[in-house]
Amino acid sequence: MNKVKLDPIFRPRSVAIIGASRTPGKVGHILTKNIVESGFTGNIWPINPNTHEVLGLKCHATILDVPEEVDLAVIAIPAIAVSKAAEECGQKGVKALVVVSAGFKEIGRDGALLENRLIEIGKKHGMRIQGPNCLGIIDTATPINLSFAAAMPREGRIGFISQSGALGTAVLDWALQEDLGFHSFVSLGNKADLDEVDFIEAMGEDENVSVILLYLESIEEGRRFLEVASKVVDKKPIVILKGGTSSAGARAAGSHTGALVGSFRAYKTAFEKSGIIMAESVEELFNSAIAFSNQPIPKNEGVAIVTNAGGPGILATDLSERLGLRIASLTSETRNQLREGLPAAASTGNPVDVLGDAKADRYSFAVEKVLRDDHVGSLVVILTPQAMTESMVTAESLLEIHGRFREKPLVAVFMGGEGVEEAQNFLIRKGIPCYDFPEKGMKTLSALYEYARFLKQPVNNPVRFRDINPEKVRKVIDTVRADKRVVLLSHEAASIVEAYGITAPESRIAQTPEEAAAHAKELGFPVVLRILSPDIIHKTDVGGIALNLRTAEDVKSAFEGILASVTRFMPRSRIYGIMVYHMIPRGREMIIGMSHDVQFGPLVMFGLGGIYVNFLKDVSFRLAPLSEPEAREMMEETKAYSLLKGIRGEAPSDIEALKNTILRVGQLVWDFPEIVEMDINPIIVYGWGEGCVALDVKMTLSKDEVK
Amino acid sequence: MNKVKLDPIFRPRSVAIIGASRTPGKVGHILTKNIVESGFTGNIWPINPNTHEVLGLKCHATILDVPEEVDLAVIAIPAIAVSKAAEECGQKGVKALVVVSAGFKEIGRDGALLENRLIEIGKKHGMRIQGPNCLGIIDTATPINLSFAAAMPREGRIGFISQSGALGTAVLDWALQEDLGFHSFVSLGNKADLDEVDFIEAMGEDENVSVILLYLESIEEGRRFLEVASKVVDKKPIVILKGGTSSAGARAAGSHTGALVGSFRAYKTAFEKSGIIMAESVEELFNSAIAFSNQPIPKNEGVAIVTNAGGPGILATDLSERLGLRIASLTSETRNQLREGLPAAASTGNPVDVLGDAKADRYSFAVEKVLRDDHVGSLVVILTPQAMTESMVTAESLLEIHGRFREKPLVAVFMGGEGVEEAQNFLIRKGIPCYDFPEKGMKTLSALYEYARFLKQPVNNPVRFRDINPEKVRKVIDTVRADKRVVLLSHEAASIVEAYGITAPESRIAQTPEEAAAHAKELGFPVVLRILSPDIIHKTDVGGIALNLRTAEDVKSAFEGILASVTRFMPRSRIYGIMVYHMIPRGREMIIGMSHDVQFGPLVMFGLGGIYVNFLKDVSFRLAPLSEPEAREMMEETKAYSLLKGIRGEAPSDIEALKNTILRVGQLVWDFPEIVEMDINPIIVYGWGEGCVALDVKMTLSKDEVK
Repeated sequence: MNKVKLDPIFRPRSVAIIGASRTPGKVGHILTKNIVESGFTGNIWPINPNTHEVLGLKCHATILDVPEEVDLAVIAIPAIAVSKAAEECGQKGVKALVVVSAGFKEIGRDGALLENRLIEIGKKHGMRIQGPNCLGIIDTATPINLSFAAAMPREGRIGFISQSGALGTAVLDWALQEDLGFHSFVSLGNKADLDEVDFIEAMGEDENVSVILLYLESIEEGRRFLEVASKVVDKKPIVILKGGTSSAGARAAGSHTGALVGSFRAYKTAFEKSGIIMAESVEELFNSAIAFSNQPIPKNEGVAIVTNAGGPGILATDLSERLGLRIASLTSETRNQLREGLPAAASTGNPVDVLGDAKADRYSFAVEKVLRDDHVGSLVVILTPQAMTESMVTAESLLEIHGRFREKPLVAVFMGGEGVEEAQNFLIRKGIPCYDFPEKGMKTLSALYEYARFLKQPVNNPVRFRDINPEKVRKVIDTVRADKRVVLLSHEAASIVEAYGITAPESRIAQTPEEAAAHAKELGFPVVLRILSPDIIHKTDVGGIALNLRTAEDVKSAFEGILASVTRFMPRSRIYGIMVYHMIPRGREMIIGMSHDVQFGPLVMFGLGGIYVNFLKDVSFRLAPLSEPEAREMMEETKAYSLLKGIRGEAPSDIEALKNTILRVGQLVWDFPEIVEMDINPIIVYGWGEGCVALDVKMTLSKDEVK
Repeated sequence: MNKVKLDPIFRPRSVAIIGASRTPGKVGHILTKNIVESGFTGNIWPINPNTHEVLGLKCHATILDVPEEVDLAVIAIPAIAVSKAAEECGQKGVKALVVVSAGFKEIGRDGALLENRLIEIGKKHGMRIQGPNCLGIIDTATPINLSFAAAMPREGRIGFISQSGALGTAVLDWALQEDLGFHSFVSLGNKADLDEVDFIEAMGEDENVSVILLYLESIEEGRRFLEVASKVVDKKPIVILKGGTSSAGARAAGSHTGALVGSFRAYKTAFEKSGIIMAESVEELFNSAIAFSNQPIPKNEGVAIVTNAGGPGILATDLSERLGLRIASLTSETRNQLREGLPAAASTGNPVDVLGDAKADRYSFAVEKVLRDDHVGSLVVILTPQAMTESMVTAESLLEIHGRFREKPLVAVFMGGEGVEEAQNFLIRKGIPCYDFPEKGMKTLSALYEYARFLKQPVNNPVRFRDINPEKVRKVIDTVRADKRVVLLSHEAASIVEAYGITAPESRIAQTPEEAAAHAKELGFPVVLRILSPDIIHKTDVGGIALNLRTAEDVKSAFEGILASVTRFMPRSRIYGIMVYHMIPRGREMIIGMSHDVQFGPLVMFGLGGIYVNFLKDVSFRLAPLSEPEAREMMEETKAYSLLKGIRGEAPSDIEALKNTILRVGQLVWDFPEIVEMDINPIIVYGWGEGCVALDVKMTLSKDEVK
């Protein structure tokens, strides 16, 4: 559906260039020249009131003068004149605009006004808008080049979406030199209307795109992004390089696009959740792309290495371990065949070392045997130029053999300079990734495996418990709102988690020493008293807590002691009473927390609790709502998990109860998005089958009511 | 001194090629051809009994027939014939051999015998030997090319030592294409005589080498390596790529060179100790080299970035944070100047964005202002090819301006393909590192800063305490040896650490219940009883421990209980008595441990103790002997350090006492290398000024006596 909507951009039948120019070097000239030279077969209509002809094409004063329907208009005139031109496009029935002009949101308040005006015009006429402040679009299949990039890359299967126009064109320039094929390139600009999600959706539906690359500094609507990306990832990999991951980088990104930059943690969690692969550099982004656009997804974890030199084989093996790849152990049959066919000094383990004097035939022999091995899921072939080496013949035979094992990815590392250059280029052109050094080859394989592992995972739906009481939560929240507070009192927070099936210590509010003693008898000794006041946060510091009270007398005198101490330290604090709790036994202290991310919503945290939270930072994160495996993974990812399982002969903790508590927290914060912060610290977990108790719950609501 | 020794290799006056051949493609032909074509000015003497002339040079049957003195002989004949040839070289008075022939230690037992024979011959005649199984040597200054590499790289200031010959030649081939200059290249081969340390020493003394690169799979003598490397690093950086860092990689390295591969942890600790920079890939190795061979060491932490596009600037900023670089905050003076001189839309913070339409003059203006800023220690200039960009003119003016700020390193990132290629090559040739993408540029800068920070550190000598009693340690060790044990009993281990000034709980050995009760009275209640037996390791499991005994009666009955339980569970164990300890109060549980590394000797560990050691692995390492700052760093590197400093209002622990205990352990294991394993777990640390106590000490001696 959306694909049809973006067809006027990727595959227009006719294009108008508003601001077309006869002057070389001017944007309106470059754009006209590029679309003419791209081989675009539809009509091209230059628009410029001051001239009659641009590059041999008849020029009109306004788009309204064009004598036929126009699918797409690209606008390259000063920002102040864009509204009028866009309005005329709307009247003309233009389906989409690519606004190249700068001077909008990115320059501040005045520009933002112009941008809002542009958005309105688009909405009114049902025109989709790319940009403003973008570098245009390329589609090599149409073909069309409506961008600043001088030359189009070769036709290929990579779709590339960039929030930085300059980064995009630099990469296209580099791709041309490396002979790398692209299907399409989109510069997002300010994302006034069309954003990354629209283009991901369009490229997701395009069968000629086999991998989608993105450079993004911000994401506009996190949840919509995840929803669309998750669907697309089922069909083809998405690789993202996220700019602005550091605090300083985010500041730079802020000044660059004026968009809100979410926390890196939330981005990472979100990308992992939807199976998106994160690249750490431009180079990694493209190395993955090369592999994904031509190589199959490996079916089997075993990586084999064939090399003619020991050192590079060792480096490749080291990297496998660092990247979490598994070196295949070859079958004894393969090893026997290799032993028979290779010289005695060759190494027939994995890496298979065919020795420095290996010619193409010896490589072919070893590669064929190794690819035939069922333990092998993918192959790295390393070649160093030595006296006997036949790099070009070896490359050709690699290609031929790989044709018979198309289901196993093949990566080549041909080391050296001129001696191997021809062979390198040959392999890359034929779709086999080929690198100078082992590290890039191994990283590329690792991206293929990351995607393969994701595809193997079942789709897990969020867990929903039925024994919950949302009405009660709503009531508590309403009370707090009525009190004009955003921070909940501890018994309020406790009653909210209890309403979602999480155990909290039973408690009562007492107004007098006698009432406290009566509550204590009902709850059972020993008990704890705690001051109840919206103004007192550090209760211990003002003598607001008394522990381990074993008799009614103790309770009464503690009650008086607390009141006396609190009124002395904080005479102006509002006091709602004193809470009485049954004192619960010791257990392991964990933490379950939650914070609200601007882009992606509630982010649930789990980890080692108590005093260890802040210094060990042994925590894990997932976006709510949570599936059962996600809650399990959250526990397994922490180091504390081995403690929970029971070490040194200690009994295991009630991991099942803990998992359910994590899931219930996920459900609660998903159902009530007004909860923007929450900490259960500690959540005390007992031995297997004995459950866990939320000992202390802190909760904060958003400042604004949530609709 | 050593430099003179290696002169016959790097700068021989005359060279014999034993095994020189007329047949193209043969090793003996390639070597002869390469030395002839390298421009070597000394005499070249081909040796081959079956021919009279090779490449126009007169050929002799044996080296003994050569009518003049020969400095260096390269041997390229079958392994079995090498001894005879080497012996003749010795008789002739040859000063050094480069043995290219393979078929020695690397093929197993028979080869090792031949290699030992070769070593003997070298020793007898005072000939140094490079190899065997090596690819030779190159020195571009001499010039001489005695290697397999077809063409010599351009003359430069990089010295490169490789344990993998093939990796070495591949890199030389690649360097030729990248126009990278080298001073010398050494292939180590089997390191029968000359090893990495000899060549590091030689290159360290050579003023024409400004950076030493190594690819190493093993180090022969760890301590000698550190000693030499530490001295060289004062003068020039050493960058190492270590192969075989993974367990699988180490196995592959093992089969490759037959050398022992030390643990990665020990290597990393050793390299850090001596200021050696570790590269993680071949590319990183060379990126660093390019920078070190031409750029100055930065004097100031602030990194400035000038760019004509936002995205790459953001990526560079992100990388700075990840790599621990500090983005400079420009002075208000610089910012004002930039504001005045740059267009209004430019960003005058750091990164400085000169905008997409910046020509060379705008770059020059910004670069000059930024380099003049005192807050700036180094500069990254990013250029993306846009319509107005003048890449070549910008490159030239960069070079000119940098000439006036030679003390500040400059790294260029010229993104794109053909549009910037000429400018990239120009900058590289002129000694300014220039890359395609920001990540490489930032990594290169990070290596420069790593070295700069190391040079700023004072040299710290190991701490030696005087209040130690080594004689007592010797006596205890002798007793254990006499008992034919390697594992010490707990009171033996405790008395050893006590002899080095570490506090352990006072204890007595009791043979009867009455004796135990008497000891308890002397030590003071409460006490702990613990079975003393070399055969019982898990004492708790067999009822061998009793805690918190408060009266003489309790002690007597506990004594009998322990004996009864132990004799029931382990009737055949030798029982030396029962230990009586004063029970010490609770405190924080830390661990101080030590293990012996094959290459580098005693490696001291510090971290969070008790049950947390195994699952949190919050530990740090240093090689003994330790300096005061090293012991401090060991504590500071752990997350537990924030706990020791006191968090949440808790009192700080006695960090000073802990530091001294770490230092004393370092001194002990350095003085007694026969201690191969040791754990003080837990070492209980108390509040500030209250010291720490080694509660449980385990110690193991080496199987063999140490001379």
